[in-house]
Parts: sequence; structure tokens; C-alpha cells
Amino acid sequence: MGGPDVVVVGAGIAGLSAARAALAAGKNVRVLEARARVGGRTAGHTLANGSTVEMGGQWVGNTQTEILRLIDELGLETFPTYDSGAGLTVLQGSVVRYEDDSFGLPEEVGVQVDRVLQEIEGMADTVDLAAPWTSPQAGELDRHTFDSWLTANTTDEIALAFFRTVTRAIFSAEAHEMSLLHFLFYVSSGGSLDILSSTTGGAQELRVVGGSQRISERMAEELGGDVVHLEHPVHAITQDGAGVTVHHGTGEERAQEVIVALPPTLAGRLRYDPPLPSSRDGLTQQLPMGSVIKIQAAYDAPFWREDALNGQVVSFEDPLSITFDNSPPDGSCGVLVGFFEASHARQAAELSADERRGLAVDCLTKFFGRRARRLNEYVERDWAAEPYTRGCYGGRLGTGVWTQYGRSLVAPVGRIHWAGAETAQIWNGYMDGAARSGRRAAAEVTAV
Amino acid sequence: MGGPDVVVVGAGIAGLSAARAALAAGKNVRVLEARARVGGRTAGHTLANGSTVEMGGQWVGNTQTEILRLIDELGLETFPTYDSGAGLTVLQGSVVRYEDDSFGLPEEVGVQVDRVLQEIEGMADTVDLAAPWTSPQAGELDRHTFDSWLTANTTDEIALAFFRTVTRAIFSAEAHEMSLLHFLFYVSSGGSLDILSSTTGGAQELRVVGGSQRISERMAEELGGDVVHLEHPVHAITQDGAGVTVHHGTGEERAQEVIVALPPTLAGRLRYDPPLPSSRDGLTQQLPMGSVIKIQAAYDAPFWREDALNGQVVSFEDPLSITFDNSPPDGSCGVLVGFFEASHARQAAELSADERRGLAVDCLTKFFGRRARRLNEYVERDWAAEPYTRGCYGGRLGTGVWTQYGRSLVAPVGRIHWAGAETAQIWNGYMDGAARSGRRAAAEVTAV
Repeated sequence: MGGPDVVVVGAGIAGLSAARAALAAGKNVRVLEARARVGGRTAGHTLANGSTVEMGGQWVGNTQTEILRLIDELGLETFPTYDSGAGLTVLQGSVVRYEDDSFGLPEEVGVQVDRVLQEIEGMADTVDLAAPWTSPQAGELDRHTFDSWLTANTTDEIALAFFRTVTRAIFSAEAHEMSLLHFLFYVSSGGSLDILSSTTGGAQELRVVGGSQRISERMAEELGGDVVHLEHPVHAITQDGAGVTVHHGTGEERAQEVIVALPPTLAGRLRYDPPLPSSRDGLTQQLPMGSVIKIQAAYDAPFWREDALNGQVVSFEDPLSITFDNSPPDGSCGVLVGFFEASHARQAAELSADERRGLAVDCLTKFFGRRARRLNEYVERDWAAEPYTRGCYGGRLGTGVWTQYGRSLVAPVGRIHWAGAETAQIWNGYMDGAARSGRRAAAEVTAV
Repeated sequence: MGGPDVVVVGAGIAGLSAARAALAAGKNVRVLEARARVGGRTAGHTLANGSTVEMGGQWVGNTQTEILRLIDELGLETFPTYDSGAGLTVLQGSVVRYEDDSFGLPEEVGVQVDRVLQEIEGMADTVDLAAPWTSPQAGELDRHTFDSWLTANTTDEIALAFFRTVTRAIFSAEAHEMSLLHFLFYVSSGGSLDILSSTTGGAQELRVVGGSQRISERMAEELGGDVVHLEHPVHAITQDGAGVTVHHGTGEERAQEVIVALPPTLAGRLRYDPPLPSSRDGLTQQLPMGSVIKIQAAYDAPFWREDALNGQVVSFEDPLSITFDNSPPDGSCGVLVGFFEASHARQAAELSADERRGLAVDCLTKFFGRRARRLNEYVERDWAAEPYTRGCYGGRLGTGVWTQYGRSLVAPVGRIHWAGAETAQIWNGYMDGAARSGRRAAAEVTAV
């Protein structure tokens, strides 16, 4: 026959991990990818000077054991994110330098922040990662937004700004755009808010030599061109007693099982016959992606290091609210990466490309001084505008969604299995979670 | 040439109203409808005894001038919803009979409810219906769910249950599934919470002789078979400098402009080339439809009228929480219509058809006594399971959506115009709003 046993829709880390695991289990696999490239929400870009920068997901952390194992298996290497020197926080109109883990907050604000952090971690510990809707206080935690909870639990304006900014940085969404339960689930899924927001010791600790897209490229190379079919956007999935038919732009594939490794909001746009149950359809009606425009500014050298700065900024008041030193491992040139996130991304998306670049460089200049104006190159990626992603970093669940629809996030529908970073219990929303979800979905189809 | 000037996608009240208005303005129009019938969220059903009942939207109110005008123009007639006698409220385990407008609430609860109602109406008056995101307090009102506001503004458990039940009845969604701003917008769009929830003098005042689907059927008859094409599901829309191409299951239509008259969540599933801007795509990622299963139980006679009951129940504690007398105008048989709404609908959808019927009849028996068991016929419709609607009564906006994405709800994207009840300023979510939205969209394309 020669037809596949399993079709995988989407060649990001989740889909390729699924394909790889299914193949290892003896299945004949075919991967259909809409784009002309693999990698999904990871995408490398080569600067004019030959350095690679990551336009999508880029960091891995030391507790992300699945993606680290995969990187190792693929013969790739990591290197530490530059993290030496002082960080900068922008609050109340001032750029504040800090060298401890205070984020430059005034001491009395730090006390408030620590108190709220303790409460958050305590609540996060109560969330059942496998089934958040069964957590002891699930109904109450899912009834309010994280922002409603925040404003009820601190009146300190700087502390509020801190948590709202951190939320944007982690979710590329506003604190009022997700339920408290979702916020807590996500914190617990990654370990703690401290781990999620940290560089050394946290989720931003390491980078992949050659860029994170290499992970998917290596997997695709291993799978080979007979397995991975680019520019095959899938439009419809039909299943019956004997198998599943996956309809793409120019034909169809017949298989026993299909793994849909797309962001849930895109999975919800395929046509399914028979139609999906309302519990699953209702979920994908309300699992929107975050909003982020990622920018990279390249310089002759990482000049901020001369000022003993680590390149990391957290601004409570600028549209480009987060930056990192994203220079190549050899420091042969300087690169600052910055993020317009959540409402800032939506506003920045309305600007012309020139205006947006100007705004980004103005922010960098405010943070790092006028040398920041002397950039050699500027590149950006608006993930919400990408038709085959429609937002990063990941999907979020608003009030009521986990408790009403959460059980449909992972549960297969007949021969259809769901993968993707949003379906992960551990490191949900991250490359590590994507890889885990692929292996979990592959285990489902190989157990059939 | 003979090709259409305007293609309309969807033959519900919005789409057919748009087609009718565009035709009247001299445009050549074609309507593409996915189903084998017109009417969208209205659908008639003929009982075994020959009576027609409405399985979808059914009521019109005296302030709904657009739909009343349309009904009149089409030669249709209305008749009053049966509204004589006492209503029933179920609270604290008791079925309470009431004949005033107290909903049977204890007096001290009524005081609380009136106070909260006053606050709601006061806030609703501040909402700019044309642009809710510009309302004076829009940011703050959009930051919290209606339920968060409620629990911060009353601690009375019965008052809370009252508002949560009324919210389910109006939105088929939970109070925590929408932002306070959306709740207020919707209340203001329909006039007041009192109008929305009332029969005589309110949104449930009148029914259409022959059923509300007749409105769409008459419009389709007038337009004719050359204009209205059934079983033509649209999958993709391509636009360029010269026109727009609408791709459906078996071919395509070329026109100057297209009006998409679908629920936003379904409009978001079409493939667009060029891709829609992220502001529009982000909106349809998070504008979910309500959840409702509508049931009708038919009896030899409207026996509850003998007990001087009007057939209207509001239960704070039963899954079938709302009923009305839905008997034909001549009272030749008795029909009770009931609703599983919001979380109740999602739970009821998990039951078998027999279990769900048993649950509904148990509720009716609790409300109206054991004669309610002697039904001749039971019919139901789960709108969330309908692939070409995916939920009723309408779409809702969660926290942050109006302020971040609201401006994309109506704004055309090139040659693409948006209609549907969710796009209406006045009577948003109702048949009246649907008709208004169709005329507004037609005005856009005839002004081109």
C-alpha cells in the first residue's frame, strides 16, 4: 500500500516530535505543513553580518528536560543567554539599575510584591496540572480574571504595574485577558513565576547554537523529504470507521490516525466531517493566541556590556517593555532583542513599519543611551499577522474556559489526536511543552 | 456579464436583509447558504399535530422596529406571547407563584436586586453603542467580568442567583464569561435589562404567525432561486484590485463586494487571501457563541392555564431554568418551551437524548405538576452542535475584547463587509439587530 499509518498536521516542534516518536514506534508517517518551512513558532533569521537571530521562540531552561534531551539527540548545542551585569527597570519615569533580584523596585514595593508572589505560588500549588478543572477551588479561580484578583489583593500601583508587566512578558496577554485559574495553571506548569521570569536558573537561561529553528530542521532532515511535505495546507479532516482522510490544498492523504499539531485556534478552523462535538468546538472558539511583535536591533558590538549592563530591561511604562542581549555566542556583534507585547503589540501593529522601528529605537535609546541609535540592522516579526500561526507566544484561556471546556483540550475525537504547546501539562506554551505534547500524541496513536 | 455585483454569505435574517436591500438599490446579488434551508438561527418545526414551533430565535418586542417593519413588509403577522396568569420562580427548593413583577423574590432581596439594577442601568447609560471602546470608563469596565462586579456589589446569595440566572437567560452564557462592558453594552443595545427580560412590553412580547423562520423564507421567496443558492458552503474569499472571488464547495462566484453574514466565530474560519489583518483575526479568535439547548414539550392542551399560570418559569436551581407557554395562537394544543442555557446546556449535551428528555420532563413536572409528564411529543435543538451556527443565542465578548478588538467588529476589510446580529448597535444579538446589520452592510456596498 505505502500510504501512511499516521498523518501529522503541522511541522513545528510538536508535530515533528510526534512524527519522530511515531516513526520510532514503527508507524509509517506523513507530515503536512502549510508553510514553505518547518519550525512553526520558531524561525531563524540571518542578519547581514551572517549572525543568526531567532524571530520566534528561542530560550530553553535547565528544568526543560524534554527539549534539552531532544536538542542533545539531534546533535545540537546550547549556550548561556548573556546575563552578566546589571539589569534595568523603568518605572515612574526613571531608568533604574539593579544588580540583585529586586527588579529595581523600591523596598516597600518589594515587600508587597513578595507577599503577592507567595500567595500566587500557594494558589498555583493547588492546581491539578492534568485536569485543572478538578482543582479544589477551580470554579472560584476560573470565575475571575487574574487582574481582578490582583486589584483585590494589592493597591500598590507599582506592584500592580510589576505584575501586569510580568504577565505581558510571559503570556503576551494582559492580566485581565485570562482567568486566575489559567494564570495559576501556567505558573505551575512551568514550575514557578520565578522560574518563568528568570534568565539564569529560569526559562530564559539557554539558547540553541544556530537558533532554535534548527531543532525542527534537524528533525525534518532525519525524517526526510518523503515524510515531511511543505506547502501542504490542510483544510479538512474526514473520519469514518476505516480511517481518516486529510484534505490539503492539492489532494488528500488517507491514514489510520491523524495528529493535529496546530495552535487550537487554527485547529478549530479546519472543516471536520463528522463535525466535532460542541465541547471541542466551543473550546477553540475561545482560546486566542497572544499578541507579540518581536524586534532585533544589530550593532557593531554589544556596547551595553561596557557599562556592565546585561541588556535586560523591564519597563513598566514603555511599549517595548522587555529586552535581552541576543548577541551571537562569540560576541562578534551586538544584538538587542525586544518585545511589543499584548496591548502594546496591538497598538504597534497599527503603525507603519517605519513608525514602529522608530518607536522601538526610541525605547532602546531611552534604556541604553544614544549609541542605541547607531544600529546596523533592524528586523521584526508580528506573529499575530502570520496566517499559519496567528499569534505567539501561545494560547490562553479566559474566565470559565478551563472549567467548562478544559477536558476537550487533549481528549482525542475518534481518530483525531491533538498536539501543540497548548496541550502540554508540563511547560505549557513552551518549546519543551510542544515536544512533550508530540510524544504524548504519538503514544496515543501507537497504542491504538 | 450576468455575474453578481454583490455576494452575500449566509441566508439568515442578516444576509437576506442585506441581499434584499442591495437588490432594492439596483445591485445584482447572489446569496450563498451552506445549509439546505434559509433562516440561520431561526428554524421552524412542525409538530405531529400540525402546529409550528420555533426551534431557534422566536420572539420580537414592540421596540424592535426594524424586524416589525420587515415582518409587515413581508405580509406576515404577529401574535402576543401568552402572558396571562401567574409566573413561577424556583428558589431555595420551593416553587414560588407570583403575579406582580417581583419574580417571587423575598422583599428584602427585591430591595437588593432593585439597587443593583439601578447601578447596572446607570452604568449601561454611559456606554457608547457605536463605539463601546470609547465609553468614558471603557478600560475599567472591560477589565472585569460581570460576575466579578456582581460579587463585589452584592453579597445576597439570592440576588446573586437572580442576576446569574437572568444573565444565562439573556446571553446563554455565564456572568463570568463576559466582561462587564459587554454586559452593559448589550443591556443598552436592547434598551434596558427590564425590556430584555420582559414578555409584555419586552423582548419576548410577540411571536410570528407560522414561526419566525417565515421571515427568512419570505425574503428568499421574493429574491428567488436565481439569487439564493442553498447547500453552497463558502470556504474561502480572495480579493484583489478588481473584485472578490468567493469559493464554495463546488465552484466560485466573482463579484465587486462580499457581505459575510455569519456568526463571527464562523466568519473567522474562512480562508482569506490576502489574510485578514490581525486586529480582525484576533477578534474572531475570541468571540464565542452562547450555549443553549431549546426543548419543546407538546400536550393535548395548555393545562397550566387552568391553574392561572402563564407558563413562565425562572428557576435559580434547575438545569432547565427558563420556560414559556409556546402554544399555537388558537390554543388548540399546549406547548411548553424550555431552555438549558450556558453551563446547564454544556452539561445536558453530555447526556444521551433519552436522559436529557427525562431531565427536561422532570423539571417541567417539578414546575407544573404531574400532568407535565403526559406529553405527546418532545423535540429539542442543540445549537452549539450545529456546524453552520455553533451556538446561540449569539456571540459574546470576554474581558478586554471590546477595548482591544471592538473596532474590527464592523469595519470592512477592503471589499469584505460584515453583517450578522453580533454587528448590530441596536438590538445586538436579536433578529431585529440581524435585520439592521443587513441593511447597514447593504448601505456600505451600495455606497461604493
